[in-house]
Amino acid sequence: MRAAIISIGDEIVLGQALDSNSAWISDQLIAHSIQTIEHCTVADDRAQIAQAIKRLAEKVDVLLLTGGLGPTDDDLTREAMGEAIWPGKPLIGDPSAVTRLEKWFSKYGSKMPRSNLKQALRTETASFLDNPNGTALGLADKLGDCQIFAMPGPPSEMKPMFIDHVLPSIASIDEDQSLLTMTVHSYGLGESVAAQRLGELTDRNRKPLVGTTVSGSMLAARIIAHGNKDQAQRELNETALLVEQSWEPYTFGRDEDTLSSSVGDLLRKVGKTVTTAESCTGGLLGKMIVDVSGSSSYYRGGWITYTNELKMDCLEVPLEILDSNGAVSKQTASAMAKGALKKAGADYSLAITGIAGPEGGSKEKPVGLVYIAIAQQTENDEPVIVRGFRFTGDRGMIRDRAAKSALQMLRFVMMNVNPMTALIWQLTDECD
Amino acid sequence: MRAAIISIGDEIVLGQALDSNSAWISDQLIAHSIQTIEHCTVADDRAQIAQAIKRLAEKVDVLLLTGGLGPTDDDLTREAMGEAIWPGKPLIGDPSAVTRLEKWFSKYGSKMPRSNLKQALRTETASFLDNPNGTALGLADKLGDCQIFAMPGPPSEMKPMFIDHVLPSIASIDEDQSLLTMTVHSYGLGESVAAQRLGELTDRNRKPLVGTTVSGSMLAARIIAHGNKDQAQRELNETALLVEQSWEPYTFGRDEDTLSSSVGDLLRKVGKTVTTAESCTGGLLGKMIVDVSGSSSYYRGGWITYTNELKMDCLEVPLEILDSNGAVSKQTASAMAKGALKKAGADYSLAITGIAGPEGGSKEKPVGLVYIAIAQQTENDEPVIVRGFRFTGDRGMIRDRAAKSALQMLRFVMMNVNPMTALIWQLTDECD
Repeated sequence: MRAAIISIGDEIVLGQALDSNSAWISDQLIAHSIQTIEHCTVADDRAQIAQAIKRLAEKVDVLLLTGGLGPTDDDLTREAMGEAIWPGKPLIGDPSAVTRLEKWFSKYGSKMPRSNLKQALRTETASFLDNPNGTALGLADKLGDCQIFAMPGPPSEMKPMFIDHVLPSIASIDEDQSLLTMTVHSYGLGESVAAQRLGELTDRNRKPLVGTTVSGSMLAARIIAHGNKDQAQRELNETALLVEQSWEPYTFGRDEDTLSSSVGDLLRKVGKTVTTAESCTGGLLGKMIVDVSGSSSYYRGGWITYTNELKMDCLEVPLEILDSNGAVSKQTASAMAKGALKKAGADYSLAITGIAGPEGGSKEKPVGLVYIAIAQQTENDEPVIVRGFRFTGDRGMIRDRAAKSALQMLRFVMMNVNPMTALIWQLTDECD
Repeated sequence: MRAAIISIGDEIVLGQALDSNSAWISDQLIAHSIQTIEHCTVADDRAQIAQAIKRLAEKVDVLLLTGGLGPTDDDLTREAMGEAIWPGKPLIGDPSAVTRLEKWFSKYGSKMPRSNLKQALRTETASFLDNPNGTALGLADKLGDCQIFAMPGPPSEMKPMFIDHVLPSIASIDEDQSLLTMTVHSYGLGESVAAQRLGELTDRNRKPLVGTTVSGSMLAARIIAHGNKDQAQRELNETALLVEQSWEPYTFGRDEDTLSSSVGDLLRKVGKTVTTAESCTGGLLGKMIVDVSGSSSYYRGGWITYTNELKMDCLEVPLEILDSNGAVSKQTASAMAKGALKKAGADYSLAITGIAGPEGGSKEKPVGLVYIAIAQQTENDEPVIVRGFRFTGDRGMIRDRAAKSALQMLRFVMMNVNPMTALIWQLTDECD
């Protein structure tokens, strides 16, 4: 089966917003043996949308539209579908959809604005697709032999609609022509070193095929297997295992796993707790930990000690240390970790202090310099582990890499991997 | 002038890689008054690429291609250009290009692999565009009145080639045909209410054109003006002002401004400081504040009191309040705000406590219930402002909306806007 995707919106075609929907949808389709042959992005222009629908409906079996289903005047996907499928005929106002919209608004104690009535319009042959996360209902229709599905633009509304309503309604899938994919995630390994470690695994003729991609400083191996579903699944697992072995100890999970969720799983397994003390990351590390549902079972909470006063008042960082070593130093990081561990009564504490830039750097302490410390509650009073990093990138990337590096360091400690195992961007290995 | 962009590559059309080139190019073109009307992504398939070239060359003045210029068998852009522009005629091997490639390789002390000879091929009417960062030369040609430029896929090679060679060779730009855009940002206003307030401003025939988009729960108005550059700029400013008036007090900035940066500007202007006390957001609010470079001048830091213990130990939330009202209550939010204000010695404090889900909800306290409190340091000892929200969406969205709503509430307070001004998702207005 062949598919095409039309993403609709001035902001996308003018380059003010990135279209991540099309890639996500193609990825989902591939997993169901449906090959996307074209992505097409057009403006909020009825004629252009209709033209794209007509052109692509002749080339593919499934046509997916995202965007243009809102209540405003520049939401024209419904009208464009009408123009393409039933030229000249008006759209139909669907009473059941009106009721559903009224319910939505009353649920939040407000009355439905008249403008939203637009969202109850459809071509006479179309059926609505439910949207639990918004007022924009999806639409399913046909043009010739081509199935057409229109979904809202916000990924949070489009993705569940695609999974729950679009995929199930796409004409049946051949189990022996499956195309399955699996992703193995890692953090802290350089791309070229990672490639060397993979060796022949990345051979372009190998089956399953292995490719690597870097995103958000995370290095992932993407494995693609064709053929009979069960066999393809077996092959995926075998290859994933080989990738994980070659990337140890940097690999932390597969597919939906995140660095934060894998750290959470380790903590939950041994029934231990963690706390955080952040300066330059300003709460990002805590945020990443709390991204995981159920993190309350192992995360105590933490401190965002952005000023020296708070570092002293909340975490008992000695004034002498701040005076003689500065806020960005291994000594301060270490003291922050110790203070947080004690105050929170946790098993582990993670502390981050650094210079995120763009301002505030100096020759001795340049932008990107970050110290990360781990303290732990143990009988034999383990030393605090402190590592210096020199992260590259802008303010956002430096803070993101600092928080992720802290999580990976904690993972190493919990897995009894040498906590001094190198991470890229590393500057120094120190214990105090 | 009108442009279209074709990005070429199996990995993009199959969703294994995100196409960021098209957005970047469109953005560059807009700045030079060239409007992109379509992005088209096709696979490494000669016929499909040629078809896309022929189709779009009839619709636009400039056609930009990225990808498919490498040395391997699946790099087919050169061949596709030949098929589209000079069907039936073979490509020409360009000696000067061969020399250039040989130089490239000898520079790195290696001999040119035969496969790279492919990169010296061009249509007879094409000229090469230099690529200082790789072996893939660009190509410039014409089909009818349409200028066609082919560039390599890697952004590090495409971007300099576009700036240095493509932009300068695009047929001269008419200052009287400028196309300028401006974005006005808002938070807390429902999309349909916002549309009602805009009224005729969103008329599709209005000049400048006004469209609205929602991203990350932020509602933005995108204004597009055509015509003489100076006049277009004036019209943009006039229309932006009308949008801002109609959306008051929810609008917080234009173009690059963020809710966090605008709150920061207000704090800096009056020389006041803020601190945060977070439960369900787990540090996200602090992270957003610290996203702004220079936030250290007004952000003290804060607490991530995820457990009741930390709420009591760090913020002096009374046990009775937690016992009788629960951790998610207006009383706890209020006590957190008071505690943080006192401990941090800040002028304002923001406190957030709620249920982000998916677990932990109940009939009385469902997932999405969040209380946000603002305490402030004032002579006449202002009451703590507490508001209840019932946020929709998943765990991530609920936390994101909670943090943004807290920032918007602080903005209202600082701008002497009635702090009880409604925000969408609002549940209750309470002062204690």
